[in-house]
Amino acid sequence: MADRLSVAVLGATGVVGQRFIQLLTDHPWFELAVLTASPERRGQRYSDATTWVLEAPMPEEVRDYRLEELKPEILRREGVEIVFSALPKDTAVEAEPLLAREGFPVFSNASPYRMEPDVPLVNGEVNPDHLSLIEVQKRKRGWKGVIVKNPNCTTAILTLALKPLMDAYGLQRVLVTTMQAVTGAGLRGVPSTMIIDNLIPFIEGEEEKVVNETRKILGKLTGETIKYASIEIAATTTRVPVIDGHTEVAYVVLNQKPGDTKEVIEALERFQGLPQKLRLPTAPRKPIIVKQEQDRPQPRLDRMEGKGMSVVVGRLEMVLEDTLRMVVLGHNTIRGAAGAAILAAEIYLKQEELK
Amino acid sequence: MADRLSVAVLGATGVVGQRFIQLLTDHPWFELAVLTASPERRGQRYSDATTWVLEAPMPEEVRDYRLEELKPEILRREGVEIVFSALPKDTAVEAEPLLAREGFPVFSNASPYRMEPDVPLVNGEVNPDHLSLIEVQKRKRGWKGVIVKNPNCTTAILTLALKPLMDAYGLQRVLVTTMQAVTGAGLRGVPSTMIIDNLIPFIEGEEEKVVNETRKILGKLTGETIKYASIEIAATTTRVPVIDGHTEVAYVVLNQKPGDTKEVIEALERFQGLPQKLRLPTAPRKPIIVKQEQDRPQPRLDRMEGKGMSVVVGRLEMVLEDTLRMVVLGHNTIRGAAGAAILAAEIYLKQEELK
Amino acid sequence: MADRLSVAVLGATGVVGQRFIQLLTDHPWFELAVLTASPERRGQRYSDATTWVLEAPMPEEVRDYRLEELKPEILRREGVEIVFSALPKDTAVEAEPLLAREGFPVFSNASPYRMEPDVPLVNGEVNPDHLSLIEVQKRKRGWKGVIVKNPNCTTAILTLALKPLMDAYGLQRVLVTTMQAVTGAGLRGVPSTMIIDNLIPFIEGEEEKVVNETRKILGKLTGETIKYASIEIAATTTRVPVIDGHTEVAYVVLNQKPGDTKEVIEALERFQGLPQKLRLPTAPRKPIIVKQEQDRPQPRLDRMEGKGMSVVVGRLEMVLEDTLRMVVLGHNTIRGAAGAAILAAEIYLKQEELK
Amino acid sequence: MADRLSVAVLGATGVVGQRFIQLLTDHPWFELAVLTASPERRGQRYSDATTWVLEAPMPEEVRDYRLEELKPEILRREGVEIVFSALPKDTAVEAEPLLAREGFPVFSNASPYRMEPDVPLVNGEVNPDHLSLIEVQKRKRGWKGVIVKNPNCTTAILTLALKPLMDAYGLQRVLVTTMQAVTGAGLRGVPSTMIIDNLIPFIEGEEEKVVNETRKILGKLTGETIKYASIEIAATTTRVPVIDGHTEVAYVVLNQKPGDTKEVIEALERFQGLPQKLRLPTAPRKPIIVKQEQDRPQPRLDRMEGKGMSVVVGRLEMVLEDTLRMVVLGHNTIRGAAGAAILAAEIYLKQEELK
Repeated sequence: MADRLSVAVLGATGVVGQRFIQLLTDHPWFELAVLTASPERRGQRYSDATTWVLEAPMPEEVRDYRLEELKPEILRREGVEIVFSALPKDTAVEAEPLLAREGFPVFSNASPYRMEPDVPLVNGEVNPDHLSLIEVQKRKRGWKGVIVKNPNCTTAILTLALKPLMDAYGLQRVLVTTMQAVTGAGLRGVPSTMIIDNLIPFIEGEEEKVVNETRKILGKLTGETIKYASIEIAATTTRVPVIDGHTEVAYVVLNQKPGDTKEVIEALERFQGLPQKLRLPTAPRKPIIVKQEQDRPQPRLDRMEGKGMSVVVGRLEMVLEDTLRMVVLGHNTIRGAAGAAILAAEIYLKQEELK
Repeated sequence: MADRLSVAVLGATGVVGQRFIQLLTDHPWFELAVLTASPERRGQRYSDATTWVLEAPMPEEVRDYRLEELKPEILRREGVEIVFSALPKDTAVEAEPLLAREGFPVFSNASPYRMEPDVPLVNGEVNPDHLSLIEVQKRKRGWKGVIVKNPNCTTAILTLALKPLMDAYGLQRVLVTTMQAVTGAGLRGVPSTMIIDNLIPFIEGEEEKVVNETRKILGKLTGETIKYASIEIAATTTRVPVIDGHTEVAYVVLNQKPGDTKEVIEALERFQGLPQKLRLPTAPRKPIIVKQEQDRPQPRLDRMEGKGMSVVVGRLEMVLEDTLRMVVLGHNTIRGAAGAAILAAEIYLKQEELK
Repeated sequence: MADRLSVAVLGATGVVGQRFIQLLTDHPWFELAVLTASPERRGQRYSDATTWVLEAPMPEEVRDYRLEELKPEILRREGVEIVFSALPKDTAVEAEPLLAREGFPVFSNASPYRMEPDVPLVNGEVNPDHLSLIEVQKRKRGWKGVIVKNPNCTTAILTLALKPLMDAYGLQRVLVTTMQAVTGAGLRGVPSTMIIDNLIPFIEGEEEKVVNETRKILGKLTGETIKYASIEIAATTTRVPVIDGHTEVAYVVLNQKPGDTKEVIEALERFQGLPQKLRLPTAPRKPIIVKQEQDRPQPRLDRMEGKGMSVVVGRLEMVLEDTLRMVVLGHNTIRGAAGAAILAAEIYLKQEELK
Repeated sequence: MADRLSVAVLGATGVVGQRFIQLLTDHPWFELAVLTASPERRGQRYSDATTWVLEAPMPEEVRDYRLEELKPEILRREGVEIVFSALPKDTAVEAEPLLAREGFPVFSNASPYRMEPDVPLVNGEVNPDHLSLIEVQKRKRGWKGVIVKNPNCTTAILTLALKPLMDAYGLQRVLVTTMQAVTGAGLRGVPSTMIIDNLIPFIEGEEEKVVNETRKILGKLTGETIKYASIEIAATTTRVPVIDGHTEVAYVVLNQKPGDTKEVIEALERFQGLPQKLRLPTAPRKPIIVKQEQDRPQPRLDRMEGKGMSVVVGRLEMVLEDTLRMVVLGHNTIRGAAGAAILAAEIYLKQEELK
């Protein structure tokens, strides 16, 4: 790829928008061309309009960008070839189809359309083949562009850890309890008055997403449709006073019993997906890292493994005759959001190139 | 006082509103009659409309109250005789004068009008005599009711600890650095993404309030006006991840040098104000508690001293020839807000009674 | 009970020791006579030797107690009739049998001996009948006194919520994930460097305790032995940055399917145990409180329900055909430790009285 | 410098030891040769013996190091040429002079000997000339090696920000209040039970260090002695629930009044020290960064500026006629400890080279 492609980030001032910008600033394939924000911020300098909350300073080169209105003509004027969306739900519903219709490939972290039959919901290493729904979507909707979704943060982390287990043993039932970071609710989603010395055992809409999206992502593409995986899933999602990194405790009833825990560890550790084979820029060397120390994974210590794109698994044990317990951790705004969208775009571009 | 007086709480769903309700529920003189809230909540049950964040459960008796619109006729219909205001600034600006004009005595935690020359800004033990501005206010404005303000939270705590020092030694200069609890910014004022593993060294408008209000409260009522105390004051106000309780480190340059630290401790500990003399229901037995352990006061351990109405002082030491250092802690929504307003109302009623 | 019984608290300076003292200070039946602490603290004043971390100030009446050595003759000299033990494991192993042999009834929060067949492991409302093991223990060991244990904190909270479900539907499988408060590890158990902006998905020895103790507590006393409940149990115990209150997410596979969720709620809410029937001082009016708000229970808001002796249950739902999900919260050092031991002692005394 | 010098880290498993290892792993001049730890850890693998708490994973290359005993012959055997000490106070008192006597240059973060007249207490940009005390020390003590100290964390951060102010305006009085991170107390120094939803307004021995060390560091080397700076200083040091990064609010009475705030900002921003002139590996490009946003600096956002070696200053304002207020932030275990020691060693080596 000789020249870098111009990209837009929609909803650039929020937490996920900030991660997009951080990850795209030094990206070898992409160049930030347009940043959009809600109407009241348009025209402002990015650094003035943004309450930056990431642990590393705002990249110098982005400070002086002017925030733009979300209009196809502006994107076109700036030569945008790929659109990354960190839009809030309400805005995404209308804006994303509009851009797809106008010819833009939209890689989106927003929840609307994730469950549409012709919309690929892609977790890079898990179901890259679902990207072939793109052709169905274009044909069916008559669009020149396309919408590709990355999963909800919790689901992205969970399905990556489940994939090798499904392949090796089959999944009958997954009962998961999550402890999610506050950035998962956006910049102002969780007031400090409600979470210091506390936790909240409920996240609006989250549990349905985990159940439904997991079945789709682990589902099988046959012809032009995805047959959902027939796994029994239940999720209890909670919010804890952690900045970044979702921790998930999963009890997994397997169809076949593993020989021993060591075998399970090997299945997870040696797992490689298409992004690793294609050596994509955002692909971590090891998508799944297994920690054998009994007190890991921990969000503050492990969330940056694989630059935030690996999931870290620990406490693997057959706790009942048929039930494997594991604790999975992933960075919610990298693997669980911006990083996953960028990885999907990389696969898409590589495949376009190979055509 | 034979029968309990009907009172209204304006802005009842916020953090300060919740404290008013908690403190008024079992109050021997007052009875909750009307709770108001912002338009979108009106008509709802209090328990449905409120995200309760206090450490003790919402009082049972208040759960079924219907939230009312803020209208004089409603207050009058319900026989309200005292109004407590926890209104946000923007609403208070118009609503409070309206109610005062209509004859209601309004005891308010909102910042507007605090610095008006004819508005008493009262910290019960410190300047109860400023309540005599009520007559000036009524006459000048032609109101039947009146507005009485309690100080900003930080100022309420600080001035209580400064008062006996001023009386004993005179205050030349006060340099204060605060570490303030998140409830001071209201229910949603400080997002958790911005305060976990962090602190914020700035609070909008707070430092000016500390400087100006302190001079007024410690000022001398002469005739019909208050002569501000001529103290040099500077404040740096910061936000820390603490739920309740503001901690303030003050370097105080005194006009006269104390004999020794013990003498200072005694001056603080034996301090009693009018509320103690009148044995008012909300008056703490000891307004100022001095801790001699070197690692106190601490917010989580000391904020409930005197049911949240005492301030706790520690680390008293002459750190320079002319400079006393002290650390002062107080409960920001009790002594620093709802409790201070209720105490002012108690003084007012007692004085009316004695007339 | 005319006069108050003299009691000792062993290990009085730790977190659980502090709760014992707080709960016993105003107890109608008991009077604090002896406080013991580790050798290096003996002879010190309680207030000097203790890093008090409870939210309410240290009771005045206990500040001047001198810490004693743990010796039977000292307890006897002071007329101690009941001993409460908050000893660390290593000390408890030797000290508790010694005291029991010397004739003292020891109500202990320490883990050793909990799983001994002749030691009652009692959660007041759940298995008060297990106290009849006392006779077996005395006879078998030739002791004049006795050791009675309360469960591990997590287990105390869990089994109270499981009991009515077991009675109504039978329990086949329980898969629990906990989010536990830092006080559960004692005063210095969890360094702040390891838990701020973090969580730890492992607690030494805790999961085995939950599994084994639950089976014993829910087991059936037949003749002189307890037949453990044959429930499949797995537990994943994690530590979160919360001061007090353990939250537990349980997936419960029931033997019989409930009619609906409402029926389950009723079974939990109307549950009453022997302590309620005997109107014991430490018995909460309602041992189980069901919250219907979907974002409850929360530790900071709900841990003090029933003065810390109730458990609060929420998020009840049949998430799979055979699986009930519930979130249970309880105060770990009250219901989960000191309060449970005191409640067991109250039952014991009432039963002695009735003999 | 062709080959890398072999270095030892003493006390390698603690928080400061971990930072030394992180900073030295990729250092262009140094190579880790020996890691020592307390007796009970000796012989263990570094990764087994260490509770790693840094935000980035433990460097792979250090995981398999065996922890050694602290003996001169072991250091000599391994060809160690520079020693970095993160020893606890009690161990440092004896070990450091022993090593210096045996010929090792010891760059130490431990507090003993900091105030000895012949021991350089060096903050790289502030007083590199104090390193010439080395000759005095060697001569006077008859040592072949030497002890060089870096300041206490709080002092390192403070004096860097004060230096350009002293040079430009002269310092009459400094009144500082700090809000310090928990890592400043070591791995287990601050229990979570004491700091969640809390702060502690006292740190053992810290305030004396700030006062005394500041006077020495800002003092003037004349002949063979340092004449302490005659500044009136008072410090109040507090602990807050922050992982890394000390925040300090300073009220500075200047000898000469600055023209305006802009002038002060420029004096701070253009400040460069010897490390910048020598382009030393650990020297930040800008030692002092001034933030003009009014809510900065913040520990979580700004502590990594200059890879943790810059201090970040904000809220600059003449708050009284003669008094400048500033908020200074620095990374306590980098600029305030390991980084400062490494920087001092770099200056030392560069100067040796130039001889």
